[in-house]
Amino acid sequence: MTEPLIARMTAEELGRFLEDHFPGMNSRESRFTVEAVNGRSVRLRMSYHDRMLRPGGTISGPAMFALADISMYAAVLALVGPRLLAVTTSLNINFLRKPGPADMLGEATILKLGKRLAVGEIGLRSVGEDELVAHATATYAIPAE
Amino acid sequence: MTEPLIARMTAEELGRFLEDHFPGMNSRESRFTVEAVNGRSVRLRMSYHDRMLRPGGTISGPAMFALADISMYAAVLALVGPRLLAVTTSLNINFLRKPGPADMLGEATILKLGKRLAVGEIGLRSVGEDELVAHATATYAIPAE
Amino acid sequence: MTEPLIARMTAEELGRFLEDHFPGMNSRESRFTVEAVNGRSVRLRMSYHDRMLRPGGTISGPAMFALADISMYAAVLALVGPRLLAVTTSLNINFLRKPGPADMLGEATILKLGKRLAVGEIGLRSVGEDELVAHATATYAIPAE
Amino acid sequence: MTEPLIARMTAEELGRFLEDHFPGMNSRESRFTVEAVNGRSVRLRMSYHDRMLRPGGTISGPAMFALADISMYAAVLALVGPRLLAVTTSLNINFLRKPGPADMLGEATILKLGKRLAVGEIGLRSVGEDELVAHATATYAIPAE
Repeated sequence: MTEPLIARMTAEELGRFLEDHFPGMNSRESRFTVEAVNGRSVRLRMSYHDRMLRPGGTISGPAMFALADISMYAAVLALVGPRLLAVTTSLNINFLRKPGPADMLGEATILKLGKRLAVGEIGLRSVGEDELVAHATATYAIPAE
Repeated sequence: MTEPLIARMTAEELGRFLEDHFPGMNSRESRFTVEAVNGRSVRLRMSYHDRMLRPGGTISGPAMFALADISMYAAVLALVGPRLLAVTTSLNINFLRKPGPADMLGEATILKLGKRLAVGEIGLRSVGEDELVAHATATYAIPAE
Repeated sequence: MTEPLIARMTAEELGRFLEDHFPGMNSRESRFTVEAVNGRSVRLRMSYHDRMLRPGGTISGPAMFALADISMYAAVLALVGPRLLAVTTSLNINFLRKPGPADMLGEATILKLGKRLAVGEIGLRSVGEDELVAHATATYAIPAE
Repeated sequence: MTEPLIARMTAEELGRFLEDHFPGMNSRESRFTVEAVNGRSVRLRMSYHDRMLRPGGTISGPAMFALADISMYAAVLALVGPRLLAVTTSLNINFLRKPGPADMLGEATILKLGKRLAVGEIGLRSVGEDELVAHATATYAIPAE
Protein backbone atom coordinates (compact mmCIF):
# COMPACT_ATOMS: atom_id res chain seq x y z
CA MET A 1 0.00 0.00 0.00
CA THR A 2 2.31 2.72 -1.19
CA GLU A 3 -0.71 4.95 -1.67
CA PRO A 4 -2.55 5.76 1.56
CA LEU A 5 -5.93 4.18 2.05
CA ILE A 6 -8.70 6.76 2.15
CA ALA A 7 -12.11 6.08 3.63
CA ARG A 8 -14.99 6.52 1.19
CA MET A 9 -17.73 6.48 3.82
CA THR A 10 -18.23 8.43 7.02
CA ALA A 11 -19.26 6.86 10.33
CA GLU A 12 -22.80 8.10 9.71
CA GLU A 13 -22.98 6.69 6.21
CA LEU A 14 -21.61 3.36 7.39
CA GLY A 15 -24.10 3.20 10.23
CA ARG A 16 -27.01 3.95 7.91
CA PHE A 17 -25.83 1.41 5.35
CA LEU A 18 -25.55 -1.32 7.97
CA GLU A 19 -28.97 -0.55 9.38
CA ASP A 20 -30.58 -0.48 5.94
CA HIS A 21 -29.12 -3.77 4.83
CA PHE A 22 -28.88 -5.69 8.09
CA PRO A 23 -32.19 -4.92 9.75
CA GLY A 24 -31.71 -7.91 12.04
CA MET A 25 -28.37 -6.59 13.31
CA ASN A 26 -29.98 -4.09 15.61
CA SER A 27 -32.73 -5.55 17.74
CA ARG A 28 -33.78 -5.53 21.34
CA GLU A 29 -30.90 -7.88 22.01
CA SER A 30 -28.02 -6.43 20.07
CA ARG A 31 -27.11 -2.98 18.89
CA PHE A 32 -24.04 -1.93 16.94
CA THR A 33 -23.04 1.69 16.43
CA VAL A 34 -20.26 2.97 14.17
CA GLU A 35 -18.34 5.38 16.39
CA ALA A 36 -15.43 6.41 14.21
CA VAL A 37 -13.81 5.98 10.81
CA ASN A 38 -10.15 6.86 10.67
CA GLY A 39 -8.28 6.04 7.46
CA ARG A 40 -8.01 2.29 7.40
CA SER A 41 -9.50 1.82 10.89
CA VAL A 42 -13.10 1.72 12.05
CA ARG A 43 -14.43 1.57 15.62
CA LEU A 44 -17.81 0.05 16.51
CA ARG A 45 -19.63 -0.15 19.82
CA MET A 46 -21.75 -3.16 20.77
CA SER A 47 -24.32 -2.21 23.38
CA TYR A 48 -24.56 -4.64 26.25
CA HIS A 49 -27.63 -6.84 26.67
CA ASP A 50 -28.26 -9.59 29.26
CA ARG A 51 -28.73 -12.13 26.49
CA MET A 52 -25.02 -11.84 25.70
CA LEU A 53 -23.99 -13.33 29.03
CA ARG A 54 -22.79 -16.87 29.55
CA PRO A 55 -22.24 -18.65 32.89
CA GLY A 56 -19.64 -16.81 34.96
CA GLY A 57 -21.06 -13.42 34.04
CA THR A 58 -18.93 -12.97 30.95
CA ILE A 59 -19.97 -11.98 27.44
CA SER A 60 -20.38 -14.95 25.10
CA GLY A 61 -17.98 -15.94 22.35
CA PRO A 62 -20.59 -15.62 19.59
CA ALA A 63 -21.39 -12.05 20.68
CA MET A 64 -17.69 -11.18 20.50
CA PHE A 65 -17.37 -12.94 17.16
CA ALA A 66 -20.26 -10.84 15.88
CA LEU A 67 -18.56 -7.63 17.01
CA ALA A 68 -15.26 -8.64 15.39
CA ASP A 69 -16.94 -9.69 12.16
CA ILE A 70 -19.11 -6.61 11.81
CA SER A 71 -16.20 -4.29 12.70
CA MET A 72 -14.10 -5.87 9.98
CA TYR A 73 -16.98 -5.67 7.51
CA ALA A 74 -17.43 -1.98 8.31
CA ALA A 75 -13.70 -1.33 7.84
CA VAL A 76 -13.77 -2.98 4.41
CA LEU A 77 -16.90 -1.07 3.42
CA ALA A 78 -15.35 2.21 4.51
CA LEU A 79 -12.50 1.68 2.05
CA VAL A 80 -14.25 0.08 -0.93
CA GLY A 81 -17.56 1.85 -0.61
CA PRO A 82 -20.96 0.26 -0.10
CA ARG A 83 -21.06 -3.21 -1.63
CA LEU A 84 -23.44 -5.70 -0.26
CA LEU A 85 -21.84 -8.99 -0.99
CA ALA A 86 -18.42 -8.81 0.59
CA VAL A 87 -18.18 -12.00 2.66
CA THR A 88 -15.92 -13.23 5.41
CA THR A 89 -13.78 -16.10 4.18
CA SER A 90 -11.98 -16.75 7.46
CA LEU A 91 -11.73 -15.38 10.96
CA ASN A 92 -9.31 -16.32 13.71
CA ILE A 93 -10.05 -15.10 17.21
CA ASN A 94 -8.08 -15.32 20.46
CA PHE A 95 -10.01 -14.77 23.67
CA LEU A 96 -7.67 -13.05 26.11
CA ARG A 97 -9.70 -11.90 29.12
CA LYS A 98 -13.25 -12.29 30.34
CA PRO A 99 -15.29 -9.22 29.57
CA GLY A 100 -17.80 -8.22 32.23
CA PRO A 101 -21.35 -7.05 31.49
CA ALA A 102 -20.62 -3.77 29.69
CA ASP A 103 -20.59 -2.26 26.22
CA MET A 104 -17.72 -3.43 24.06
CA LEU A 105 -15.69 -1.67 21.39
CA GLY A 106 -14.35 -3.30 18.25
CA GLU A 107 -11.54 -1.58 16.37
CA ALA A 108 -10.78 -3.06 12.97
CA THR A 109 -7.72 -2.07 10.95
CA ILE A 110 -7.20 -3.14 7.35
CA LEU A 111 -3.72 -4.65 6.90
CA LYS A 112 -4.09 -5.28 3.21
CA LEU A 113 -6.66 -4.25 0.66
CA GLY A 114 -6.17 -6.27 -2.49
CA LYS A 115 -8.43 -6.50 -5.51
CA ARG A 116 -9.98 -9.71 -4.32
CA LEU A 117 -9.12 -10.05 -0.64
CA ALA A 118 -8.94 -7.73 2.33
CA VAL A 119 -7.11 -8.78 5.49
CA GLY A 120 -7.49 -7.00 8.78
CA GLU A 121 -7.03 -7.27 12.50
CA ILE A 122 -9.61 -6.44 15.13
CA GLY A 123 -9.08 -5.58 18.77
CA LEU A 124 -12.00 -5.93 21.21
CA ARG A 125 -12.17 -4.02 24.48
CA SER A 126 -14.68 -3.38 27.23
CA VAL A 127 -15.65 0.28 27.35
CA GLY A 128 -13.32 2.20 29.63
CA GLU A 129 -10.67 -0.53 29.73
CA ASP A 130 -7.23 -0.45 28.13
CA GLU A 131 -6.46 -4.11 27.78
CA LEU A 132 -7.72 -6.20 24.90
CA VAL A 133 -10.45 -8.68 25.73
CA ALA A 134 -10.06 -10.49 22.41
CA HIS A 135 -8.02 -10.14 19.23
CA ALA A 136 -9.01 -11.37 15.81
CA THR A 137 -7.72 -11.45 12.26
CA ALA A 138 -10.09 -11.83 9.36
CA THR A 139 -10.11 -12.18 5.59
CA TYR A 140 -12.87 -10.78 3.41
CA ALA A 141 -13.53 -11.64 -0.22
CA ILE A 142 -14.26 -8.54 -2.30
CA PRO A 143 -16.56 -9.11 -5.27
CA ALA A 144 -15.88 -7.50 -8.62
CA GLU A 145 -17.64 -4.16 -8.85
CA MET B 1 -3.60 -40.49 23.00
CA THR B 2 -2.42 -44.05 23.28
CA GLU B 3 -5.48 -44.83 25.38
CA PRO B 4 -8.77 -44.39 23.55
CA LEU B 5 -10.91 -41.45 24.56
CA ILE B 6 -14.16 -42.54 26.11
CA ALA B 7 -17.18 -40.30 26.40
CA ARG B 8 -18.40 -39.75 29.96
CA MET B 9 -21.73 -38.22 28.99
CA THR B 10 -24.51 -39.38 26.71
CA ALA B 11 -26.20 -37.13 24.16
CA GLU B 12 -29.14 -36.80 26.54
CA GLU B 13 -26.97 -35.85 29.50
CA LEU B 14 -25.06 -33.34 27.40
CA GLY B 15 -28.28 -31.80 26.14
CA ARG B 16 -29.68 -31.47 29.65
CA PHE B 17 -26.44 -30.01 31.00
CA LEU B 18 -26.32 -27.39 28.25
CA GLU B 19 -29.96 -26.44 28.77
CA ASP B 20 -29.55 -26.19 32.54
CA HIS B 21 -26.48 -24.02 32.42
CA PHE B 22 -27.05 -22.01 29.25
CA PRO B 23 -30.70 -21.10 29.51
CA GLY B 24 -30.16 -18.36 26.93
CA MET B 25 -28.82 -20.83 24.38
CA ASN B 26 -32.23 -22.11 23.43
CA SER B 27 -34.73 -19.36 22.77
CA ARG B 28 -37.27 -18.50 20.16
CA GLU B 29 -34.39 -17.56 17.90
CA SER B 30 -31.89 -20.33 18.36
CA ARG B 31 -32.10 -23.95 19.36
CA PHE B 32 -29.25 -26.44 19.68
CA THR B 33 -29.82 -30.17 20.06
CA VAL B 34 -27.16 -32.78 20.83
CA GLU B 35 -27.80 -35.48 18.25
CA ALA B 36 -24.98 -37.92 18.87
CA VAL B 37 -21.90 -38.63 20.97
CA ASN B 38 -19.43 -41.02 19.45
CA GLY B 39 -16.10 -41.45 21.22
CA ARG B 40 -14.25 -38.23 20.67
CA SER B 41 -16.87 -36.75 18.33
CA VAL B 42 -20.14 -34.98 19.07
CA ARG B 43 -22.81 -33.85 16.60
CA LEU B 44 -25.15 -30.93 17.25
CA ARG B 45 -28.06 -29.58 15.27
CA MET B 46 -28.84 -25.87 15.11
CA SER B 47 -32.48 -25.30 14.20
CA TYR B 48 -33.00 -22.67 11.56
CA HIS B 49 -34.61 -19.34 12.41
CA ASP B 50 -35.15 -16.30 10.14
CA ARG B 51 -33.06 -14.16 12.46
CA MET B 52 -29.97 -16.10 11.40
CA LEU B 53 -30.17 -14.81 7.83
CA ARG B 54 -27.98 -12.11 6.36
CA PRO B 55 -28.43 -10.37 3.01
CA GLY B 56 -28.26 -12.86 0.18
CA GLY B 57 -30.35 -15.41 2.05
CA THR B 58 -27.41 -17.10 3.77
CA ILE B 59 -26.92 -17.96 7.43
CA SER B 60 -24.83 -15.39 9.28
CA GLY B 61 -21.23 -15.86 10.40
CA PRO B 62 -22.04 -15.34 14.09
CA ALA B 63 -24.69 -18.06 13.97
CA MET B 64 -22.17 -20.47 12.43
CA PHE B 65 -19.55 -19.43 14.96
CA ALA B 66 -22.03 -20.22 17.72
CA LEU B 67 -22.67 -23.67 16.29
CA ALA B 68 -18.94 -24.39 15.98
CA ASP B 69 -18.20 -23.10 19.48
CA ILE B 70 -21.01 -24.98 21.19
CA SER B 71 -20.23 -28.19 19.28
CA MET B 72 -16.62 -28.00 20.44
CA TYR B 73 -17.71 -27.24 23.99
CA ALA B 74 -20.03 -30.25 23.95
CA ALA B 75 -17.24 -32.50 22.64
CA VAL B 76 -14.92 -31.39 25.45
CA LEU B 77 -17.64 -31.87 28.06
CA ALA B 78 -18.41 -35.34 26.73
CA LEU B 79 -14.82 -36.38 27.43
CA VAL B 80 -14.01 -34.55 30.66
CA GLY B 81 -17.48 -34.68 32.21
CA PRO B 82 -19.62 -31.75 33.21
CA ARG B 83 -17.46 -28.77 34.20
CA LEU B 84 -18.88 -25.35 33.87
CA LEU B 85 -15.88 -23.19 33.32
CA ALA B 86 -14.11 -24.63 30.32
CA VAL B 87 -13.57 -21.63 28.03
CA THR B 88 -12.65 -21.17 24.40
CA THR B 89 -9.18 -19.67 24.09
CA SER B 90 -9.12 -19.47 20.31
CA LEU B 91 -11.20 -20.38 17.31
CA ASN B 92 -10.29 -20.28 13.65
CA ILE B 93 -13.07 -20.63 11.11
CA ASN B 94 -13.05 -20.90 7.33
CA PHE B 95 -16.30 -20.18 5.53
CA LEU B 96 -16.46 -22.44 2.48
CA ARG B 97 -19.94 -22.24 1.01
CA LYS B 98 -23.08 -20.22 1.62
CA PRO B 99 -25.60 -22.19 3.64
CA GLY B 100 -29.21 -21.68 2.67
CA PRO B 101 -32.05 -21.29 5.16
CA ALA B 102 -32.04 -24.75 6.77
CA ASP B 103 -30.98 -26.52 9.93
CA MET B 104 -27.24 -26.95 10.27
CA LEU B 105 -25.16 -29.74 11.80
CA GLY B 106 -21.92 -29.21 13.69
CA GLU B 107 -19.62 -32.19 14.17
CA ALA B 108 -16.75 -31.59 16.58
CA THR B 109 -13.87 -34.04 16.96
CA ILE B 110 -11.27 -33.73 19.70
CA LEU B 111 -7.76 -33.92 18.22
CA LYS B 112 -5.97 -33.64 21.55
CA LEU B 113 -7.15 -33.76 25.11
CA GLY B 114 -4.37 -32.53 27.36
CA LYS B 115 -4.52 -31.70 31.05
CA ARG B 116 -4.92 -28.02 30.38
CA LEU B 117 -5.91 -27.66 26.75
CA ALA B 118 -8.20 -29.45 24.35
CA VAL B 119 -7.88 -28.94 20.61
CA GLY B 120 -10.54 -29.96 18.15
CA GLU B 121 -11.86 -29.49 14.66
CA ILE B 122 -15.44 -28.80 13.73
CA GLY B 123 -17.18 -29.37 10.43
CA LEU B 124 -20.43 -27.53 9.67
CA ARG B 125 -22.96 -28.77 7.13
CA SER B 126 -26.49 -27.96 6.07
CA VAL B 127 -28.87 -30.80 6.87
CA GLY B 128 -29.01 -33.24 3.98
CA GLU B 129 -25.87 -31.91 2.29
CA ASP B 130 -22.52 -33.66 2.03
CA GLU B 131 -20.17 -30.76 1.52
CA LEU B 132 -18.84 -28.70 4.37
CA VAL B 133 -20.25 -25.20 4.69
CA ALA B 134 -17.57 -24.15 7.15
CA HIS B 135 -14.63 -25.71 8.96
CA ALA B 136 -13.19 -24.59 12.27
CA THR B 137 -10.47 -25.49 14.71
CA ALA B 138 -10.70 -24.46 18.33
CA THR B 139 -8.75 -24.59 21.57
CA TYR B 140 -10.40 -24.91 24.96
CA ALA B 141 -8.77 -24.30 28.33
CA ILE B 142 -9.66 -27.00 30.84
CA PRO B 143 -9.73 -25.86 34.44
CA ALA B 144 -8.27 -28.00 37.23
CA GLU B 145 -10.96 -30.27 38.68
CA MET C 1 -18.56 -29.50 -4.90
CA THR C 2 -21.45 -31.46 -6.35
CA GLU C 3 -19.03 -32.85 -8.93
CA PRO C 4 -16.24 -34.99 -7.46
CA LEU C 5 -12.75 -33.55 -7.48
CA ILE C 6 -10.43 -35.50 -9.72
CA ALA C 7 -6.67 -35.33 -9.47
CA ARG C 8 -4.92 -34.15 -12.65
CA MET C 9 -1.43 -35.18 -11.59
CA THR C 10 -0.01 -38.45 -10.28
CA ALA C 11 2.31 -38.70 -7.28
CA GLU C 12 5.23 -39.07 -9.68
CA GLU C 13 4.29 -36.03 -11.75
CA LEU C 14 3.78 -33.97 -8.62
CA GLY C 15 7.15 -35.03 -7.22
CA ARG C 16 8.91 -34.16 -10.48
CA PHE C 17 7.16 -30.80 -10.72
CA LEU C 18 8.12 -29.86 -7.17
CA GLU C 19 11.74 -30.88 -7.72
CA ASP C 20 11.98 -29.00 -10.99
CA HIS C 21 10.57 -25.78 -9.64
CA PHE C 22 11.73 -25.85 -6.04
CA PRO C 23 15.31 -27.02 -6.35
CA GLY C 24 16.01 -25.71 -2.84
CA MET C 25 13.25 -27.86 -1.34
CA ASN C 26 15.30 -31.01 -1.42
CA SER C 27 18.78 -30.55 -0.03
CA ARG C 28 21.06 -32.33 2.38
CA GLU C 29 18.88 -30.98 5.16
CA SER C 30 15.36 -31.52 3.96
CA ARG C 31 13.71 -33.94 1.58
CA PHE C 32 10.04 -34.14 0.65
CA THR C 33 8.56 -37.07 -1.25
CA VAL C 34 5.05 -37.27 -2.66
CA GLU C 35 3.82 -40.68 -1.47
CA ALA C 36 0.23 -40.73 -2.65
CA VAL C 37 -2.47 -38.77 -4.48
CA ASN C 38 -6.00 -39.86 -3.72
CA GLY C 39 -8.81 -37.71 -5.08
CA ARG C 40 -8.68 -34.51 -3.11
CA SER C 41 -5.99 -35.75 -0.70
CA VAL C 42 -2.21 -35.88 -1.07
CA ARG C 43 0.32 -37.46 1.30
CA LEU C 44 3.91 -36.26 1.56
CA ARG C 45 6.83 -37.61 3.56
CA MET C 46 9.45 -35.32 5.08
CA SER C 47 12.68 -37.21 5.69
CA TYR C 48 14.21 -36.58 9.06
CA HIS C 49 17.44 -34.60 9.43
CA ASP C 50 19.25 -33.54 12.62
CA ARG C 51 18.94 -29.90 11.61
CA MET C 52 15.18 -30.11 12.18
CA LEU C 53 15.60 -30.68 15.92
CA ARG C 54 15.04 -28.09 18.59
CA PRO C 55 15.96 -28.35 22.29
CA GLY C 56 14.13 -31.25 23.90
CA GLY C 57 14.73 -33.52 20.91
CA THR C 58 11.58 -32.53 19.04
CA ILE C 59 11.15 -31.45 15.44
CA SER C 60 11.01 -27.67 15.02
CA GLY C 61 7.89 -25.65 14.26
CA PRO C 62 9.29 -24.24 11.01
CA ALA C 63 10.03 -27.75 9.72
CA MET C 64 6.45 -28.79 10.48
CA PHE C 65 5.13 -25.61 8.90
CA ALA C 66 7.12 -26.42 5.77
CA LEU C 67 5.63 -29.91 5.62
CA ALA C 68 2.08 -28.56 6.09
CA ASP C 69 2.57 -25.83 3.50
CA ILE C 70 4.13 -28.05 0.86
CA SER C 71 1.51 -30.79 1.42
CA MET C 72 -1.25 -28.25 0.88
CA TYR C 73 0.50 -26.85 -2.18
CA ALA C 74 0.81 -30.34 -3.62
CA ALA C 75 -2.88 -31.05 -2.98
CA VAL C 76 -3.88 -27.86 -4.81
CA LEU C 77 -1.55 -28.65 -7.71
CA ALA C 78 -2.93 -32.17 -7.98
CA LEU C 79 -6.40 -30.74 -8.59
CA VAL C 80 -5.69 -27.66 -10.70
CA GLY C 81 -2.69 -29.01 -12.56
CA PRO C 82 0.79 -27.54 -12.59
CA ARG C 83 0.70 -23.79 -12.03
CA LEU C 84 3.69 -22.12 -10.56
CA LEU C 85 2.27 -19.13 -8.83
CA ALA C 86 -0.35 -20.46 -6.46
CA VAL C 87 0.52 -18.84 -3.13
CA THR C 88 -0.44 -19.45 0.46
CA THR C 89 -2.57 -16.61 1.76
CA SER C 90 -2.99 -17.93 5.28
CA LEU C 91 -2.08 -20.93 7.40
CA ASN C 92 -3.24 -21.79 10.89
CA ILE C 93 -1.40 -24.57 12.71
CA ASN C 94 -2.04 -26.26 16.06
CA PHE C 95 0.85 -28.17 17.58
CA LEU C 96 -0.61 -31.15 19.44
CA ARG C 97 2.25 -33.45 20.44
CA LYS C 98 6.03 -33.39 20.31
CA PRO C 99 7.31 -35.39 17.38
CA GLY C 100 10.50 -37.33 18.01
CA PRO C 101 13.39 -37.58 15.53
CA ALA C 102 11.71 -39.51 12.72
CA ASP C 103 10.27 -39.02 9.26
CA MET C 104 6.96 -37.20 9.25
CA LEU C 105 3.91 -37.54 7.00
CA GLY C 106 1.73 -34.67 5.89
CA GLU C 107 -1.75 -35.46 4.56
CA ALA C 108 -3.53 -32.53 2.96
CA THR C 109 -7.20 -32.66 1.99
CA ILE C 110 -8.88 -29.96 -0.08
CA LEU C 111 -12.10 -28.80 1.63
CA LYS C 112 -13.03 -26.32 -1.07
CA LEU C 113 -11.69 -25.62 -4.49
CA GLY C 114 -13.06 -22.31 -5.71
CA LYS C 115 -12.07 -20.33 -8.77
CA ARG C 116 -9.85 -18.06 -6.76
CA LEU C 117 -9.26 -19.74 -3.41
CA ALA C 118 -8.60 -23.27 -2.23
CA VAL C 119 -9.05 -24.21 1.42
CA GLY C 120 -7.67 -27.37 2.93
CA GLU C 121 -6.73 -29.10 6.12
CA ILE C 122 -3.48 -30.88 6.80
CA GLY C 123 -2.74 -33.56 9.38
CA LEU C 124 0.88 -34.21 10.39
CA ARG C 125 2.02 -37.51 11.90
CA SER C 126 5.27 -39.21 12.76
CA VAL C 127 5.84 -42.28 10.62
CA GLY C 128 4.29 -45.34 12.25
CA GLU C 129 2.18 -43.34 14.71
CA ASP C 130 -1.59 -42.95 14.66
CA GLU C 131 -2.05 -39.73 16.56
CA LEU C 132 -1.72 -36.34 14.94
CA VAL C 133 1.36 -34.35 15.86
CA ALA C 134 0.00 -31.15 14.38
CA HIS C 135 -3.08 -30.04 12.46
CA ALA C 136 -3.28 -27.11 10.07
CA THR C 137 -5.74 -25.36 7.84
CA ALA C 138 -4.57 -23.28 4.92
CA THR C 139 -5.87 -21.05 2.16
CA TYR C 140 -4.25 -20.82 -1.25
CA ALA C 141 -4.88 -18.16 -3.87
CA ILE C 142 -5.28 -19.63 -7.33
CA PRO C 143 -4.18 -17.40 -10.19
CA ALA C 144 -6.21 -17.10 -13.37
CA GLU C 145 -5.05 -19.65 -15.91
CA MET D 1 -2.63 -6.69 32.65
CA THR D 2 -3.27 -3.93 35.14
CA GLU D 3 0.42 -3.98 36.03
CA PRO D 4 2.73 -3.06 33.18
CA LEU D 5 4.78 -5.85 31.67
CA ILE D 6 8.48 -5.35 32.25
CA ALA D 7 11.15 -7.09 30.22
CA ARG D 8 13.52 -9.25 32.27
CA MET D 9 16.08 -9.70 29.54
CA THR D 10 17.94 -7.25 27.33
CA ALA D 11 18.36 -7.66 23.57
CA GLU D 12 21.92 -8.87 24.20
CA GLU D 13 20.89 -11.41 26.80
CA LEU D 14 18.11 -12.68 24.57
CA GLY D 15 20.45 -13.01 21.63
CA ARG D 16 22.99 -14.93 23.70
CA PHE D 17 20.33 -17.22 25.15
CA LEU D 18 18.96 -18.06 21.72
CA GLU D 19 22.41 -18.76 20.32
CA ASP D 20 23.37 -20.94 23.28
CA HIS D 21 20.25 -23.05 23.17
CA PHE D 22 19.44 -23.06 19.48
CA PRO D 23 22.82 -23.60 17.86
CA GLY D 24 21.09 -24.66 14.65
CA MET D 25 19.18 -21.39 14.44
CA ASN D 26 22.12 -19.45 13.11
CA SER D 27 23.90 -21.18 10.28
CA ARG D 28 25.22 -20.29 6.89
CA GLU D 29 21.65 -20.25 5.69
CA SER D 30 19.78 -18.39 8.37
CA ARG D 31 20.72 -15.79 10.94
CA PHE D 32 18.46 -14.15 13.50
CA THR D 33 19.50 -11.10 15.51
CA VAL D 34 17.58 -9.58 18.40
CA GLU D 35 17.53 -5.88 17.57
CA ALA D 36 15.40 -4.41 20.34
CA VAL D 37 13.39 -5.22 23.44
CA ASN D 38 10.79 -2.66 24.37
CA GLY D 39 8.39 -3.56 27.18
CA ARG D 40 6.16 -6.24 25.77
CA SER D 41 7.57 -6.00 22.24
CA VAL D 42 10.68 -7.52 20.72
CA ARG D 43 12.15 -6.94 17.25
CA LEU D 44 14.26 -9.52 15.42
CA ARG D 45 16.09 -9.33 12.11
CA MET D 46 16.37 -12.33 9.80
CA SER D 47 19.35 -11.95 7.48
CA TYR D 48 18.60 -12.77 3.89
CA HIS D 49 20.03 -15.89 2.25
CA ASP D 50 19.41 -17.22 -1.27
CA ARG D 51 18.10 -20.48 0.17
CA MET D 52 15.06 -18.60 1.48
CA LEU D 53 13.80 -17.85 -2.04
CA ARG D 54 10.96 -19.61 -3.78
CA PRO D 55 9.96 -19.33 -7.45
CA GLY D 56 9.05 -15.74 -8.30
CA GLY D 57 11.93 -14.35 -6.26
CA THR D 58 10.01 -14.10 -3.01
CA ILE D 59 10.98 -15.31 0.45
CA SER D 60 9.44 -18.68 1.34
CA GLY D 61 6.58 -19.23 3.75
CA PRO D 62 8.60 -21.48 6.05
CA ALA D 63 11.30 -18.81 6.39
CA MET D 64 8.65 -16.24 7.36
CA PHE D 65 7.03 -18.72 9.74
CA ALA D 66 10.42 -19.21 11.39
CA LEU D 67 10.85 -15.45 11.83
CA ALA D 68 7.35 -15.08 13.30
CA ASP D 69 7.79 -18.05 15.63
CA ILE D 70 11.22 -17.05 16.89
CA SER D 71 10.14 -13.42 17.35
CA MET D 72 7.19 -14.56 19.46
CA TYR D 73 9.41 -16.91 21.44
CA ALA D 74 11.86 -14.08 22.13
CA ALA D 75 9.04 -11.79 23.27
CA VAL D 76 7.79 -14.43 25.71
CA LEU D 77 11.30 -15.07 27.01
CA ALA D 78 11.90 -11.35 27.48
CA LEU D 79 8.93 -11.20 29.87
CA VAL D 80 9.16 -14.51 31.72
CA GLY D 81 12.94 -14.82 31.76
CA PRO D 82 14.98 -17.62 30.24
CA ARG D 83 13.02 -20.89 30.25
CA LEU D 84 13.87 -23.48 27.72
CA LEU D 85 10.68 -25.37 27.23
CA ALA D 86 8.09 -22.78 26.30
CA VAL D 87 6.44 -24.22 23.19
CA THR D 88 4.23 -22.84 20.47
CA THR D 89 0.76 -24.31 20.73
CA SER D 90 -0.70 -22.54 17.72
CA LEU D 91 0.25 -20.00 15.08
CA ASN D 92 -1.95 -18.30 12.51
CA ILE D 93 -0.23 -16.40 9.71
CA ASN D 94 -1.61 -14.22 6.92
CA PHE D 95 0.67 -13.57 3.97
CA LEU D 96 -0.04 -10.06 2.71
CA ARG D 97 2.64 -9.11 0.19
CA LYS D 98 5.55 -10.81 -1.51
CA PRO D 99 8.82 -9.90 0.17
CA GLY D 100 11.77 -9.45 -2.15
CA PRO D 101 15.27 -10.76 -1.45
CA ALA D 102 16.19 -8.65 1.59
CA ASP D 103 16.54 -8.89 5.35
CA MET D 104 13.24 -9.08 7.18
CA LEU D 105 12.16 -7.72 10.56
CA GLY D 106 9.79 -9.49 12.93
CA GLU D 107 8.14 -7.45 15.66
CA ALA D 108 6.29 -9.50 18.26
CA THR D 109 4.02 -7.92 20.87
CA ILE D 110 2.58 -9.87 23.78
CA LEU D 111 -1.19 -9.32 24.01
CA LYS D 112 -1.68 -11.45 27.08
CA LEU D 113 0.72 -13.07 29.50
CA GLY D 114 -1.16 -15.58 31.63
CA LYS D 115 0.24 -18.15 34.00
CA ARG D 116 -0.04 -20.90 31.45
CA LEU D 117 -0.48 -19.23 28.08
CA ALA D 118 0.97 -16.23 26.31
CA VAL D 119 -0.74 -14.77 23.25
CA GLY D 120 0.94 -12.34 20.91
CA GLU D 121 0.84 -10.82 17.48
CA ILE D 122 3.76 -10.54 15.11
CA GLY D 123 4.24 -8.16 12.20
CA LEU D 124 6.79 -9.01 9.48
CA ARG D 125 8.33 -6.39 7.23
CA SER D 126 11.13 -6.15 4.69
CA VAL D 127 13.92 -3.89 5.92
CA GLY D 128 13.26 -0.31 4.87
CA GLU D 129 9.60 -0.89 4.02
CA ASP D 130 6.58 0.37 5.95
CA GLU D 131 3.93 -2.08 4.91
CA LEU D 132 3.51 -5.46 6.54
CA VAL D 133 4.55 -8.45 4.48
CA ALA D 134 2.87 -10.90 6.82
CA HIS D 135 0.96 -10.81 10.09
CA ALA D 136 0.71 -13.61 12.61
CA THR D 137 -0.83 -14.39 15.96
CA ALA D 138 0.60 -17.10 18.16
CA THR D 139 -0.04 -18.87 21.46
CA TYR D 140 2.76 -20.17 23.66
CA ALA D 141 2.40 -22.60 26.54
CA ILE D 142 4.41 -21.51 29.56
CA PRO D 143 5.67 -24.35 31.74
CA ALA D 144 5.54 -24.09 35.53
CA GLU D 145 8.78 -22.60 36.86
